[in-house]
Amino acid sequence: MTVTVPAGFEAAGVAVGLKSTGKPDVAVVVNRGPLAVGAAVFTSNRAKANPILWSQQAIQDGVVEAIVLNSGGANCFTGSFGFLTTHLTAERAAELLGVSAGDIQVCSTGLIGTGDQVFRDKVLAGTEAAIGALSTSGGDDAARAIMTTDSRPKTSTVTADGWTIGGMAKGAGMLAPGLATMLVVLTTDAVLTAAEADEHLRAATRVSFDRLDSDGCMSTNDQVTLMVSGASGIVPAPDAFRAALIEVCTDLATQLQSDAEGASHDITIEVIHAASEDDAVEVGRSVARNNLFKAAIFGNDPNWGRVLAAIGTTDAEFDPYAVDVEMNGVRVCSDGGPDQPRELVDLSPRATSVVIDLKVGDASATIYTNDLTHDYVHENSAYSS
Amino acid sequence: MTVTVPAGFEAAGVAVGLKSTGKPDVAVVVNRGPLAVGAAVFTSNRAKANPILWSQQAIQDGVVEAIVLNSGGANCFTGSFGFLTTHLTAERAAELLGVSAGDIQVCSTGLIGTGDQVFRDKVLAGTEAAIGALSTSGGDDAARAIMTTDSRPKTSTVTADGWTIGGMAKGAGMLAPGLATMLVVLTTDAVLTAAEADEHLRAATRVSFDRLDSDGCMSTNDQVTLMVSGASGIVPAPDAFRAALIEVCTDLATQLQSDAEGASHDITIEVIHAASEDDAVEVGRSVARNNLFKAAIFGNDPNWGRVLAAIGTTDAEFDPYAVDVEMNGVRVCSDGGPDQPRELVDLSPRATSVVIDLKVGDASATIYTNDLTHDYVHENSAYSS
Repeated sequence: MTVTVPAGFEAAGVAVGLKSTGKPDVAVVVNRGPLAVGAAVFTSNRAKANPILWSQQAIQDGVVEAIVLNSGGANCFTGSFGFLTTHLTAERAAELLGVSAGDIQVCSTGLIGTGDQVFRDKVLAGTEAAIGALSTSGGDDAARAIMTTDSRPKTSTVTADGWTIGGMAKGAGMLAPGLATMLVVLTTDAVLTAAEADEHLRAATRVSFDRLDSDGCMSTNDQVTLMVSGASGIVPAPDAFRAALIEVCTDLATQLQSDAEGASHDITIEVIHAASEDDAVEVGRSVARNNLFKAAIFGNDPNWGRVLAAIGTTDAEFDPYAVDVEMNGVRVCSDGGPDQPRELVDLSPRATSVVIDLKVGDASATIYTNDLTHDYVHENSAYSS
Repeated sequence: MTVTVPAGFEAAGVAVGLKSTGKPDVAVVVNRGPLAVGAAVFTSNRAKANPILWSQQAIQDGVVEAIVLNSGGANCFTGSFGFLTTHLTAERAAELLGVSAGDIQVCSTGLIGTGDQVFRDKVLAGTEAAIGALSTSGGDDAARAIMTTDSRPKTSTVTADGWTIGGMAKGAGMLAPGLATMLVVLTTDAVLTAAEADEHLRAATRVSFDRLDSDGCMSTNDQVTLMVSGASGIVPAPDAFRAALIEVCTDLATQLQSDAEGASHDITIEVIHAASEDDAVEVGRSVARNNLFKAAIFGNDPNWGRVLAAIGTTDAEFDPYAVDVEMNGVRVCSDGGPDQPRELVDLSPRATSVVIDLKVGDASATIYTNDLTHDYVHENSAYSS
């Protein structure tokens, strides 16, 4: 159980043939209240898929009754026909649930350009079937139905002081440049206003999912949605709720990282003693998106020169000749020069740690990325998305 | 013959064991005058190698008598010992040539962190040997001595109205993110002032080498140097000289592109009808640095969705739903939606053309890049640089 762990939620996942494999491909999560509060963050990509265009409008009033998600087709660059498909999906769900279409969020993931009549018919049939199958234990089925190239479903739950947060996520593309769609649904039975939900969601995604996306690019379809039922009747302490939401989001983000297509290393890049958090993020991202660095890690080569060359391209405040770099606990570079021999670094474990000490201030940030591997190239050259 | 085609230049390339293969690794190009004018552009990376730190200072007066280049070691992140090595190299060359050390440019390429006593001794010995071997037909030897993972030397020559421009270049890294060092030496016997040389060089590199470097990142050691002997005695028409210099630079840039490590496609991305040249460059680069797009081209997949998703991350002026995309002559996307079937696109040739029509203004730009292949990952994970 995942999104259905918090009280007040039902979910389902069904198979309607959008995926050629016959695996589940349409999920629905419904908020049974008493509240119907919702908040969402969307891709910053200017090329937005039809479901994004719909959902961005629909979320304006902070009311979300249900969310419909499909895999097996992104409904992106499919024109007004595709937008109508999303609209019809919301209307079908609204009609069956007895709510307003404007309170239905819609998400799609899969091949860009897919959104013809066959797609529309299947999505509508799937919406109907999923709503017919709703249950308070349907969270796992829903998590499975949103998978694309994911090797496993991603779910997470945190309970505290009488309220609970649940979540599910999909995404298995190499998380740089991050163009594989990431869909996340978070649910809670805590009592929150729409403004509070929005504020907590933005704060939590900023330090979790946003730190996973290694060059700031996002897919055409990315969406993270928080649904609030208030069924626990408890108003959470803001700090406690914020911390719990960050915990769930970070857990899901690292599950996405560890399932990245073709990756052989999960790389955690920690930038410390930066002048500002923005500087720390910029420096970490410049390393995370550097193909030469990523290929070196794949080759178990602790190539700190590529780290310095990457951070040298940023505008962050630091002296390249004062920087220290540590890899898996070994300080290979001190003050921009060689320190411990690179042979001491063991890069055979999948978990890889890089610590960059800028020696300027007190800010820090952690960026999560993966290595660049043969399998990454293979999966992304052979699979159209 | 290459840099020695224009009158007034001598060059040589020798082997002193910096490369474990025993191939030539130190090159010298000397300007025999009557002029000793020079101009150079350097990496924008803040982490600059010692030869860059030296050469940037030495070029200030616009006088260049000679340039010494070594492969087999980048002399980067090698501290004050490394800087002294560069200084000693310039002094040794100056002494042997009877000029001032401040008029000697020095370039290095190879593994970052290499710059110990053994390296110093070999570079100094190579400088001496190369100066002893100088000849007016030494350009080809010099071009060979600066190669690292290059599969072939890159040279170019243009002659016009009594004067000539010659050039040599090295660089074979995947030209995104561009961290493989690019070294270029251009020579001319035209009569130019230092200010003219600088202006022409900046204008020519801006539309050639800068358009090859697909994400704006540069290596710690990149340098493009123009040496002017004036030996033809002819003052060129500025426009004609500019055009000829652009021709040589573009020729060398496309030679670098076609020798990119492990690439199987040379991709020319033409952005047309942009609001400004900056917009066109930004849009082209966003595609050129998108790993998912690059992997798709490797897989012969005309995935225009990835093109639109990439350009959607830019701030350039355009409507994503008005854009056309053509691949190898087939318009696969019109107004942000599907046009011709992707099956009509033949991506089997190495030369790949992508035309992106933004339909906003009259500006355009061309960006040169490569695909992302298994061999790229292999070469950059197995070879420390």
